[in-house]
Amino acid sequence: MPHKRKGMLLVVSGPSGAGKGTLCKRLLAADANFCFSVSATTRGPRAGEQHGADYHFLTEEVFQARVDAGEFLECAMVHGHRYGTPRREVLAMLDAGRDVLLDIDPQGARSVAAAMRDCVTVFILPPSFEALEKRLRHRGTEEEAEIARRLANGRRELDQLCSYQYAIINDAVDEATAQLLAVVTAERLRTVRFFPQIPQNL
Amino acid sequence: MPHKRKGMLLVVSGPSGAGKGTLCKRLLAADANFCFSVSATTRGPRAGEQHGADYHFLTEEVFQARVDAGEFLECAMVHGHRYGTPRREVLAMLDAGRDVLLDIDPQGARSVAAAMRDCVTVFILPPSFEALEKRLRHRGTEEEAEIARRLANGRRELDQLCSYQYAIINDAVDEATAQLLAVVTAERLRTVRFFPQIPQNL
Repeated sequence: MPHKRKGMLLVVSGPSGAGKGTLCKRLLAADANFCFSVSATTRGPRAGEQHGADYHFLTEEVFQARVDAGEFLECAMVHGHRYGTPRREVLAMLDAGRDVLLDIDPQGARSVAAAMRDCVTVFILPPSFEALEKRLRHRGTEEEAEIARRLANGRRELDQLCSYQYAIINDAVDEATAQLLAVVTAERLRTVRFFPQIPQNL
Repeated sequence: MPHKRKGMLLVVSGPSGAGKGTLCKRLLAADANFCFSVSATTRGPRAGEQHGADYHFLTEEVFQARVDAGEFLECAMVHGHRYGTPRREVLAMLDAGRDVLLDIDPQGARSVAAAMRDCVTVFILPPSFEALEKRLRHRGTEEEAEIARRLANGRRELDQLCSYQYAIINDAVDEATAQLLAVVTAERLRTVRFFPQIPQNL
């Protein structure tokens, strides 16, 4: 990769339980030029989640102070908790030529797409609503009311599918991963991103 | 694939000698949903080329009659010979849900892109001008004046790179093939093409 290339901002979103977290982990493992932007949230950590790796877990007060200081590229209230994407971190990685992956909810995705016009947006779909419900229950981290709320949100979010550039049905995770990698490969070949890469002898 | 899906029109173009013919053959071999639109031309067949498979080889008179009858989606004069893409054949394949591959020169690609707004356009680049010249000579099918003409055209055509959606440098043919396949996979995941594929239970 030439040094002057500006990075690509890849926004992966979709209903809670569609499996976007798994796909994002697979992408990061497969592609060394990608780095993950760690979001901030006011929700508590799930089992196994680490502060600074999965999320920056913040109190309401600290989160609000960062909002007031304009430190988030986007922030949104999802399922009763607040989430935000740290602006400075994302822009610095893009300027350094790294590709940046955001795993964010549809509200946040909409805000980022409006703020960063050349980002790539991918919506991850569950194979069916039954599968979505099963996955949310199987995770076992949410209470019944939370699951019902996430399912209702999921139905609404599907209506926004057309505002994304790409959609991937996450039925078989290997196939969905291959599709996400193909989107990344193709987007790197777009002529709008391509010009700094043309060899000097052409 | 659901039956109602409309096919994708993939236009592969680039300077003569960049190797787009080889990449197109690889794509057709790898992807059963693609069919190749056989162009018409007034030039004579090269060694091994078959009428009806590689090109429809037509006389000037027959070619002109088809132009007059509006039977070409585009036609262009390239390197002193005429080339045309049969309209009815392409539209019928797309309507039947087949993806259609056009391997055409940059002039023709521009006309098709103007006429078929949702087509996908890919420009194939040689790794360098030296490589382009070497390939044209190695082919051994053209005379010196023809090679010089193709090289001069090639330099002009590179200026049009930005009017294509994707660009692929054909240095190692396996890698370039994988990139072309990734473009196809990604384009099939575009939400604008995606809606007929959403499962009914979502």
